[in-house]
Amino acid sequence: MKITLLGSGNVATHLGEAFKKAGHEIVQVWSRTAKNAAVLANSLQCGYTNHISDLSAEPDIYILSVPDDSITETALKFPFPEKILVHTSGTTGLEVPGISGVFYPVQTFSKSTKLDLSLVPIAIEGKDQEVERLLLELGGSISSRVVKLNSDQRKALHVAAVFACNFSNHLYGIAERILESKELSFDLIYPLILETAVKVQGNSPASVQTGPAVRGDQKTLDKHLQFLDTNPALKELYERISQSIINFY
Amino acid sequence: MKITLLGSGNVATHLGEAFKKAGHEIVQVWSRTAKNAAVLANSLQCGYTNHISDLSAEPDIYILSVPDDSITETALKFPFPEKILVHTSGTTGLEVPGISGVFYPVQTFSKSTKLDLSLVPIAIEGKDQEVERLLLELGGSISSRVVKLNSDQRKALHVAAVFACNFSNHLYGIAERILESKELSFDLIYPLILETAVKVQGNSPASVQTGPAVRGDQKTLDKHLQFLDTNPALKELYERISQSIINFY
Repeated sequence: MKITLLGSGNVATHLGEAFKKAGHEIVQVWSRTAKNAAVLANSLQCGYTNHISDLSAEPDIYILSVPDDSITETALKFPFPEKILVHTSGTTGLEVPGISGVFYPVQTFSKSTKLDLSLVPIAIEGKDQEVERLLLELGGSISSRVVKLNSDQRKALHVAAVFACNFSNHLYGIAERILESKELSFDLIYPLILETAVKVQGNSPASVQTGPAVRGDQKTLDKHLQFLDTNPALKELYERISQSIINFY
Repeated sequence: MKITLLGSGNVATHLGEAFKKAGHEIVQVWSRTAKNAAVLANSLQCGYTNHISDLSAEPDIYILSVPDDSITETALKFPFPEKILVHTSGTTGLEVPGISGVFYPVQTFSKSTKLDLSLVPIAIEGKDQEVERLLLELGGSISSRVVKLNSDQRKALHVAAVFACNFSNHLYGIAERILESKELSFDLIYPLILETAVKVQGNSPASVQTGPAVRGDQKTLDKHLQFLDTNPALKELYERISQSIINFY
């Protein structure tokens, strides 16, 4: 297919690389910032523009990967109402004017990290069968798992992803600060973090929950809260999440 | 070395297997529950007892892996004051009567999961140099990373581990429930969970934080909170952790 990317952030970068690798032709990269468009266009060896009115009409599909709060604004300026424009957001639906579908890769993207998308689920939704057929084909060219979800399901998937990914990463960040406060290296918990993630690939998290809260080990909880006395915000977060575990089990 | 295990839970099971594999001789397993002692002793091909007074005096070291709130009680009944008895707790120190040292593997243990301990850090502490030398040697026989930490550092490490592991696993569990509420399979986020954990092996979590909270994307946060309206406890947890992310960055 011929594809143009609108956006030059993490999602656009990783999708662009995967599309190119799958043999698609990237026609253009558009970004509000010419420099960002140029960087991605250079790595994908295609044209670029920062004027949305300069978009080529040639592509079969336009993939809009911009922050959620810029989707509507960008879609309204998109010059080809008859062309297929899809966004990549988990939380936004089909209600945006000009949007024909959704192509949501269920993954966390950072520019610094190389990614293999072949096992990453792609959640798609189209306003009609023609769009859905196209998205299934495009998704299937870069991933072995393409699922048709409605907007409500996709929102649930996105909220779940925030808990499992964004929030977990924040907890890793808190752990790093706690370790640094005692001059300990964060890499001491690399194997622990990895094993925690590996263990739920095939086990329900509830069946492998460990730690003082699920054991009802109040003595250890109290010692940890005492340790966190000097940081009231962390102490409160520790209490809240422990209480959530206790209520859950 | 000749080793006796006091306890038959997840930690005792995984350490016992690693010790045996490293060529040590497991002399006995003790557990309050004869059946549990028998199961582990059977897999380690050694003797067992549920009477602490029946312990053999032969071993060089006794590894006490029981819940934190049973450590003191068990240590007080240990019949050989001249022998080396160490516990495996992150949070308990050397203050327990009869305890000579600590052998704390920085990992999460579930019986259902096979584990390679060779890359798992072992945090050790001894009441004197002789104990420390023995623990360094024992740790070095099953892991390439043995670190000498004092009790305060080890407590920090344990609190960090609770955030990074126990709490993350709980968030995975919440994600699973959210997915199930819309008849979606938890395995849709397997790659996401794994990538989140892999990404911080070499990157500071703060440098790879993604999601609506760190972007200051209030519109998406509001949509997610609205989605969670039917579950006030989850909604509050979402708000708290998002606020913690906003304050952190």
